Amino acid sequence: MKKTIGILGGMGPLATADLFRKIIDNTQAGCDQDHLRVVIDSNTNIPDRTAAILHGGEDPVREMVRSGLALEGMGADLLIMPCNTAHYFYDRIAPFFNIPLLNMLEETAGEIQRRGISTVGLLATDGTIQAGVYDKPLASRGIQVLKPSPEGQQRVMEVIYQGVKAGNYQLDISGFLKVLDGLFVQGAQVVILGCTELPVAFDRFAIHRPHIDPTLVLARAAIREAGGQWKKG
Amino acid sequence: MKKTIGILGGMGPLATADLFRKIIDNTQAGCDQDHLRVVIDSNTNIPDRTAAILHGGEDPVREMVRSGLALEGMGADLLIMPCNTAHYFYDRIAPFFNIPLLNMLEETAGEIQRRGISTVGLLATDGTIQAGVYDKPLASRGIQVLKPSPEGQQRVMEVIYQGVKAGNYQLDISGFLKVLDGLFVQGAQVVILGCTELPVAFDRFAIHRPHIDPTLVLARAAIREAGGQWKKG
Repeated sequence: MKKTIGILGGMGPLATADLFRKIIDNTQAGCDQDHLRVVIDSNTNIPDRTAAILHGGEDPVREMVRSGLALEGMGADLLIMPCNTAHYFYDRIAPFFNIPLLNMLEETAGEIQRRGISTVGLLATDGTIQAGVYDKPLASRGIQVLKPSPEGQQRVMEVIYQGVKAGNYQLDISGFLKVLDGLFVQGAQVVILGCTELPVAFDRFAIHRPHIDPTLVLARAAIREAGGQWKKG
Repeated sequence: MKKTIGILGGMGPLATADLFRKIIDNTQAGCDQDHLRVVIDSNTNIPDRTAAILHGGEDPVREMVRSGLALEGMGADLLIMPCNTAHYFYDRIAPFFNIPLLNMLEETAGEIQRRGISTVGLLATDGTIQAGVYDKPLASRGIQVLKPSPEGQQRVMEVIYQGVKAGNYQLDISGFLKVLDGLFVQGAQVVILGCTELPVAFDRFAIHRPHIDPTLVLARAAIREAGGQWKKG
């Protein structure tokens, strides 16, 4: 019996749509009914996660729990959350649910380990970087992490906030590309697209560099857990 | 106060993702929280609509009603349904809901009328064509409809079922393109992409012809009804 996937989304909406699309595109299916059932709450009432972690902004836990429980009520058998920064709150929200909440960061670190990669670059929001949410999953597997300089980090934030979240694909990304290439010069074998807006940015700005897309890793983990079949290719 | 949009989806999943994406892309928003809340049930338990209408297949009304009521329970203030063929069942399901179910076909016919178009070609499933679901919305506005020949209709069904629904973008679409061009030769000013897999097909197969995309019309109608702002451009 196949399970229903619940997406605790809206962080942001485009990342939510990206994850949903990746679940569909990576499922082996010959017709509508072969696909997995997916229920989604693109809950844009969830306050900004980076603002909450770094600047005393409103706590997002209340809305995240409400969304997760609503999805459980809709019949979700497992939950996924397409926002890296939101995983800072993982331990506070997971206990509210009767169903598993897959951890995108642990899944991503596991995938990096399976590929035999020892050094990664991390592109993420200030919240994810400063909260260190990727540090434990990577360090526990002996994977070394390189992060942009403080100025470089500003270029990453611009692409996420002034680019993808604002729907502005005319943004000048030359500074961002320098930061990206700098990580490879320092020894990164791949970069983690550690904010769910970044796979969207790589797609829409047509950026091609070796990377791990946690959204894709999570989509495939969800298909596996829900009893679906991975599409070959 | 902005309203929450509920998507009664899964007919098919990719069309559902396409509608969700079009709502996001067409909303004027500077950050996550400016976007509209969207709740989705990509309910792949809903039986095939064309099979039910033409071949005595399982009635999809039960699952459609269950999904719509679940979305209402999640807080949806209005419902939309990204499946043209499913609108055959509109009058049987709408009475179950306390919230409005926007009618994609009426919205599309209204848009064609606003553009001053008098003759359209209709690309759709056998179910949509034979049930005549577009006939009344178009005829009531004095819009003439051209449909493919029976053999041409088979090429349309192939693109929908063997192409998009099966995720096969290597399909030979030369026969389909001839059918499409034939409608313009007969006098169509635009074609209605009257199956929600067809905008996906036009996108993925890079087909460029004057068309009306009911999914896009519906996305913009939903933004309007939910109190969001249309993005310019």
